[in-house]
Amino acid sequence: MTHIIPVILSGGSGTRLWPLSVEQRPKQFLSLVSDRSMFADTLARAIDASRFGPALIIGAERHTALMEAEISDAALADARIILEPVARNTAPAIALAAVAAGGSEAVMLVMPSDHVIADIPAFLAAIDTALPAAQQGWLVTFGINPTGPETGFGYIRMGKPLDEAPGVWAVDRFIEKPVREKAEAMLAEGEHCWNAGIFMLRADRYLEELEKHAPDICRAVHHALDGVALNERLIRPEPGRFAACPSDSIDYAVMERATRVGIVPVSCGWSDVGSWDALAQIGVSDDDGNTVSGDVIALDSQNSFIYADGITVTASGISDLIVIANGSHVMIVPKGRSQDVKRIAETLKAASKPKASPPG
Amino acid sequence: MTHIIPVILSGGSGTRLWPLSVEQRPKQFLSLVSDRSMFADTLARAIDASRFGPALIIGAERHTALMEAEISDAALADARIILEPVARNTAPAIALAAVAAGGSEAVMLVMPSDHVIADIPAFLAAIDTALPAAQQGWLVTFGINPTGPETGFGYIRMGKPLDEAPGVWAVDRFIEKPVREKAEAMLAEGEHCWNAGIFMLRADRYLEELEKHAPDICRAVHHALDGVALNERLIRPEPGRFAACPSDSIDYAVMERATRVGIVPVSCGWSDVGSWDALAQIGVSDDDGNTVSGDVIALDSQNSFIYADGITVTASGISDLIVIANGSHVMIVPKGRSQDVKRIAETLKAASKPKASPPG
Repeated sequence: MTHIIPVILSGGSGTRLWPLSVEQRPKQFLSLVSDRSMFADTLARAIDASRFGPALIIGAERHTALMEAEISDAALADARIILEPVARNTAPAIALAAVAAGGSEAVMLVMPSDHVIADIPAFLAAIDTALPAAQQGWLVTFGINPTGPETGFGYIRMGKPLDEAPGVWAVDRFIEKPVREKAEAMLAEGEHCWNAGIFMLRADRYLEELEKHAPDICRAVHHALDGVALNERLIRPEPGRFAACPSDSIDYAVMERATRVGIVPVSCGWSDVGSWDALAQIGVSDDDGNTVSGDVIALDSQNSFIYADGITVTASGISDLIVIANGSHVMIVPKGRSQDVKRIAETLKAASKPKASPPG
Repeated sequence: MTHIIPVILSGGSGTRLWPLSVEQRPKQFLSLVSDRSMFADTLARAIDASRFGPALIIGAERHTALMEAEISDAALADARIILEPVARNTAPAIALAAVAAGGSEAVMLVMPSDHVIADIPAFLAAIDTALPAAQQGWLVTFGINPTGPETGFGYIRMGKPLDEAPGVWAVDRFIEKPVREKAEAMLAEGEHCWNAGIFMLRADRYLEELEKHAPDICRAVHHALDGVALNERLIRPEPGRFAACPSDSIDYAVMERATRVGIVPVSCGWSDVGSWDALAQIGVSDDDGNTVSGDVIALDSQNSFIYADGITVTASGISDLIVIANGSHVMIVPKGRSQDVKRIAETLKAASKPKASPPG
């Protein structure tokens, strides 16, 4: 039986869960959904030795210690970490993994490290469905069956079912994040899935399509790994050469242009945890609709999401609020307004520009 | 000219501004209204050498360091602090001051240390009005002209104006904290003031009335100061003897029973800062009705009171909230619900009972 190589993408700086997620500790290293980080949860999904071989992790060099701490588990003894000296988006990151995987017919399961999947059996079943197509050379995306007219995700339109791989469809086309009306139309039409950024593909097929559609990326990645030992625990692409690589996503650089792109639709309790509102929807709420974490007391309060880390949060009589607090910061927004996080963070940054400090 | 002895009552454990005010640092030692503590603001009101002699402060022994830090000002070099080993309410506290003042015809201006007075000239004018009556032996209260049908204060009904002291009325009677309807009726009737707990009276007259109406208190206080040096910076009543003193307020023990009790009505921007709502009303708000203090960013928010001490608070899209945050605690209640503080504090206390810790 083929062993799938889990490829964990951890290079993101995910600051949409500010103020908890910051550049020094982006979202994937926070324990927001379980008592482990989302990074650790992602690894744990791909640890089953009957399906998976040793993982390949691609992350930022400055997060080396965070990543190493998460893979101290014996079951991950053979995992390797490719340390990106700079971020160049997913197309180069996956190319690094494909080269480190030997560029062979090895099948890679590419997963972002900061997503939540609640229904692991459903996800594993989708993997089993996708595997034959991937082995045959299809670049398979996992499409999430939409549960609402979300405007924050790209969509994928399903084409014809593949005769050679039951449960897999050819991709008709990729669709950019839509406006509301278009999202509703796609939902009504059916045959559209959310693009979750999870892929299963052979290393050689990926590099082949990359060479065809983004040769600069393909060349730069090979160049950056030239002479680098690929069997070490930590793999370090040559910084100057990797910095010279163009930055692009796998979607733009490869998936939207390649031939033999397939999709396996799946309902697996997926979330990209792209906002505090998204996290609030995932959490288990009490009878009053409150989801709380940490030292929190909420009296006579409804439908609020309160997260406390290293600080006590108390409330009485509040409704429909998101409250995020740690020892240095408290952020409060009404439910449904967590997109304001970006503006708040920018305003705060502008307001707290470092002043000239006296010498000594 | 007679010099009035300011008597500053600082023995309160004022926890109504929890979570900022705690037993270790009650309300009077917080800087909430100005950049000084309310304790310091109270002292500053009675520092004018043309009117006032050296102050007498009565506070809890455990707050000695806090009080001494506040009276390091040269103008307060002669102030004395009477350290209560236990709290016994205001009647004994003022008796301690009266004895320390020599029990003479010295006129004392008794002021709680945790009230705000915005209009100092109006307050000083009321003091000038009260002085002749106090010198003649009247126990004078300062009654606050009510600005609304408040149910959180006691009221005083004015009687006849005194011929011998213009601007002073005899007190008709003291009225307990009323229900709403009664408060509204008193407001409509006029001739009623709020009881602010601010008094001007001669030391000997106070002790005389105390001896008559609460002889146990009078005796216990004399006993507790027997042999104690009264001219030191720190005056320490004998703990066991003071602990034996009954606990009672000046209102119950003396004012409601004494003869020759007068009132000077005054409008001086007074507040007892008895709740976060009260504090929110005092603060200067911006165009959106927000009052903020500390590192606060409030975008697209209205009518909120946000206080941050040692922590950053950010918000977007909130309305009518009170947010109090320091490095260890965040409390959030809607405006108008700051009375919930007590219940929150009690719930938290019950929830965080210390667990048995392992030895070592």
